[in-house]
Formats: sequence, structure tokens, C-alpha cells
Amino acid sequence: MNSKSIKIFCPATVANVNCGFDALGFALEGIGDEMVFRKTKTKGVTITKITGEKLPMEAHENVAGVAGNAMLEAVSADFGVEIEIHKKIRSGSGIGSSSASAAGAVFGINQFLENPLNNLELTRYAMKGEALASGNEHADNVAPCIYGGTTLVTGYDPFKIIALPPMDTVYVGILHPHITIKTKEARAILPKQVPLADAIAQSQSLASFVASLYEWDKELFQESLKDALVTPHRKQLIPHFDEVKHISEKNSCIAHGISGSGPSMFCLAFAEADIENYLTESVALYISNGLKVDSYSSRINGEGCRVIG
Amino acid sequence: MNSKSIKIFCPATVANVNCGFDALGFALEGIGDEMVFRKTKTKGVTITKITGEKLPMEAHENVAGVAGNAMLEAVSADFGVEIEIHKKIRSGSGIGSSSASAAGAVFGINQFLENPLNNLELTRYAMKGEALASGNEHADNVAPCIYGGTTLVTGYDPFKIIALPPMDTVYVGILHPHITIKTKEARAILPKQVPLADAIAQSQSLASFVASLYEWDKELFQESLKDALVTPHRKQLIPHFDEVKHISEKNSCIAHGISGSGPSMFCLAFAEADIENYLTESVALYISNGLKVDSYSSRINGEGCRVIG
Repeated sequence: MNSKSIKIFCPATVANVNCGFDALGFALEGIGDEMVFRKTKTKGVTITKITGEKLPMEAHENVAGVAGNAMLEAVSADFGVEIEIHKKIRSGSGIGSSSASAAGAVFGINQFLENPLNNLELTRYAMKGEALASGNEHADNVAPCIYGGTTLVTGYDPFKIIALPPMDTVYVGILHPHITIKTKEARAILPKQVPLADAIAQSQSLASFVASLYEWDKELFQESLKDALVTPHRKQLIPHFDEVKHISEKNSCIAHGISGSGPSMFCLAFAEADIENYLTESVALYISNGLKVDSYSSRINGEGCRVIG
Repeated sequence: MNSKSIKIFCPATVANVNCGFDALGFALEGIGDEMVFRKTKTKGVTITKITGEKLPMEAHENVAGVAGNAMLEAVSADFGVEIEIHKKIRSGSGIGSSSASAAGAVFGINQFLENPLNNLELTRYAMKGEALASGNEHADNVAPCIYGGTTLVTGYDPFKIIALPPMDTVYVGILHPHITIKTKEARAILPKQVPLADAIAQSQSLASFVASLYEWDKELFQESLKDALVTPHRKQLIPHFDEVKHISEKNSCIAHGISGSGPSMFCLAFAEADIENYLTESVALYISNGLKVDSYSSRINGEGCRVIG
């Protein structure tokens, strides 16, 4: 594609997914940003419009700008882009808001290249934007945003991502209580040392999760979606976490946990009604406690960023 | 099968496999015990002969006896078995000697049942024998001995084993330096607490290993076969470990580590010559240092225990 203007959808994403701290992530269908790209003769990224959130218009202060410029420079592009960013994903919600902008920028620019980059290369440049937001280059949100589906970051040296088999039949609920958790704070609350037994349990859970997708073993899938290392510490940052988890269990949902570093929570179920009930009851709980909350019902997005116009 | 006498092969096994402490194991083709079973009217297990190792003949003191009796009782068998055990796997070598006897016992008895048990049930009874040898019921050796190939113990509650995709093209070298490491000592040397970063790295390695088998991604397979948690501590129990590891790397082998709790080491390569060179040089190293060592070259056993007569 080499048209002068395109519009894309960039999905929200859930990282960590209980057993896969700093490794797993999946993309959502029900919520995402839109971005519009126009090819320009002027080199570099120019942000022309941002709606939905108050974010820097200066390219070097904006994750989309940083990611886009990193890529344009790396491929020695003889053109530039104007970008409009229409945010639907709230900043600081924990469902990959900055990642969607970073991933969207590189995905959008890729549409204008004669030799498009592959998903791994795109992820690498998107991480440059992600670093502006979070302080370090990590791929657990940008990878699923670009690849779609569920991704496993196997390591950074060498940098590798595995697109795991689809979990098409899963329904997702997202709850975003309106509190602020800084990524730094969420990191600081983690212990430096953990029991060896928990470390072993976690490695078995993540390996089981991966095997469960390849085998599509629903029982193992459910059993593996637990977290011995991180959630027990971070959940105290999220009011009513245990009550909401209890609501998810009561409604036969199969997994519940913190999305990324929070405050959003994700919930998985094999039946849409279970998610609807989980969301309804949990929203009521937060409202009755005087807290604002957003909720989203979604399927898994199998495609990642895509052109929509 | 319901004949009165059968002979079986029960393979040696490598557990842990670097990234999969207490979870992974694979079966060897090149070394294993033989056992002969005769159906008797007398109930229970009678050990009639043991060659190759000095082991208890009393059923309740012998892993094969304990495992076999646990199974015969559980299925309310109206018969018993006489068992001859011909050990080729040295006790205390770290390549599943007691597991082979325990797994062989239940596999052999299963041949006489009208409603044979499945592999998971067999593993469960074999673990009863394993517990006699090691003090606790674990499946990381008995599972690959029964299933063959490479197995992942995903957990004990619920107890589940995944037979992973084959790694048929891999060559294995085993080195057994003649030193004694008690399983208890190998456990005691492990730290109670480990760095969170190492725990995360380990979970990514084990998950990557599993994904690499399903994708048969040779690069990822090699990258994943490392150990952040256990080997750094246990290797000090094995003289010349680092030198032998260096020999494996120099010969283009793809992984090297401790088999189970040692003292045997395993080495993997994609070419048979690499394993031969690794074994030759490592054996020479031990001999020049005045230590006895056994060495074995093997393929992966894809079948587990099997009837051979």
C-alpha cells in the first residue's frame, strides 16, 4: 500500500496475564485507538491532532513520535508522516495505552514503505516509544498490539517473540477503576527475592500455559493462569481486588488478574454471560464504594493493528 | 497381553534439563534396565533376582516392589508377579536408576491387566516407589520413563503430565563421574530465596523451551536450555563441571547441564560427532584427574518402557 492517507485501529492489550510477568500479552478487540497517517515530503513525524487524551504534540515527547522517528531514521525513509491520534484507551489504565500509540505509529508508517518491516522489527521500534512512557524498552504490550493474539517474549538477547496459538473461544472482561498506579510504584512494591518454590511454580505455570494453547487443553489453560510471584504483592495497590476476584470465581470465570501493572483487571471466561455478570457485579461494587470504574467486554483480537480506512 | 512371562526395557532418564527444575524430563535410548515379569497366583510382588547392582530383595524395601504392590493393591489384582531386575543404570548416577525400576514395575504389571491403566495412572503408582528412594513423590524421572520422549509435569494438584513434541533429531551424551551426591545434599545446597529477576528469566526459559518444541525452532530450543536457579549452586558438587561445559561449547554442542541432581551430566547436540568429541575429551579430562567416569551416547527414546520379549 502506498496511498497518501490511511486510518488504522490499534488494540488495547493485556500484559503479564498472571503467569507471564514481562513475557505474555494478548490483544483486545473491544477497545483500541484510531490513528490517521498522511505521507509528507517533510521528513520525520509531525503530530497534527490528538483527541481523547491530553498528550504532548511534540514528536520527541510523544511515544508515537519517538517510535515513528526511530523507525523512519532506521530505514532512511525519504518521506515523513503527519499523525492524528484518537485515543480511546485511557492513559495509565494498564491496558497498553502508550503501547497502542507506539505500535500504531510503526505499523502505520510501515504501510508507506516499499519494503515493509516484519512484526519483530516493528516491535523493536515501537519499544523505543514505549521506553519514553515507562522508562525501559519492553515488548509485553507492543508485541501483542502488533502481532495480535497472544504473544510470548522469549527474551531480549537475542530478542524473540513467539506468536502463540489463538485462544479464539475466550471472552475477556476489563475493569478499570479510576485510580492511579505509576509503573515505578508497581515495580517498587515487588520483592527483590522470592522463595525458590514460588519461582519453580511460576515457571511451571507459564510453561503449562504455553503447552495448554498448543494442545488447547482447557483444564490446563485454566490451571496455569495463576501467579505466585507478582500479583500477591501488587494486588494491594488495587482497592477491592480480592472481592472482584471472588466475583469472577462466583461467576465461573476461569482467570482473573491485574492487567500489566494495573489498575485495570482482566477476567477470562468461556461464556460471554459469565463476563457480563462479572462486569455488572464488579462495577456495582466499585460504584457503591464511591469509585469510578470503566468496563469493557471484548474478544481476543487475532490480527493486531489493522488498516480500517 | 496376558502371557505368563514378559521381558521389558526401562530407559534411563534425564530430569530438570536446565530450565525445567522438577518439571522436565526425557528418556534415553542408549541405556536402560531390563526386567522380567512372571504372573503368579500368589498376590503381591516377589523379587526373585537382581543383577548389576546390590539392592534389597525385600519387596517393601525395593522401589520396584513398592511401586508394584501399590498398583496391584489399587486395582485389586487377583494375581501377583515375580520380578527379575537386571540393572544397567547405576544407582546414584542421576539418570533415573530408581525411577526405571519403579516405572518398569508398573509398566510390566500393566501388561497382565485386562483393563490396562493409562500412562498418568502408571506414573502415579511409580511415584510411590520413587518416594522410597528419594523421600518424596515426584514424577520428573518416572514420567519420561513411562511416556517416552520429553515430558512436562505441569503440577501435582491436579496431577498432570504433558507429553511434549518429539526432539528426534537430537543426540545426547551422558557423563557419569564416579562421585556420590545424595539427593538431600543436592536439595540442601539450593538457596531458599532467589532473585525475582532470575525467577522471571527461568519462567521465560521453560516456556520458551516448550514453545520451541511445538514450533521446532532450533534457535529458541538452544537459547532456552539454560538455568538461572539451580545449576549455578549445584555445579560446585561436580568436579570439573565448568571445564566439561567448556568442552561441550567448544564442540558446538547446544546444551550442557546436570542430569537430575547429578552427578551425571547431559549434553545435547544436533550432530553425533559433536557428542562423540564431547565424551572423548571429557572422559580424558576426568581420567587425567584420577577420577573414574562412565560415558554413554544416546538418542531420545520416544516410547518409554517397552516389551522386548
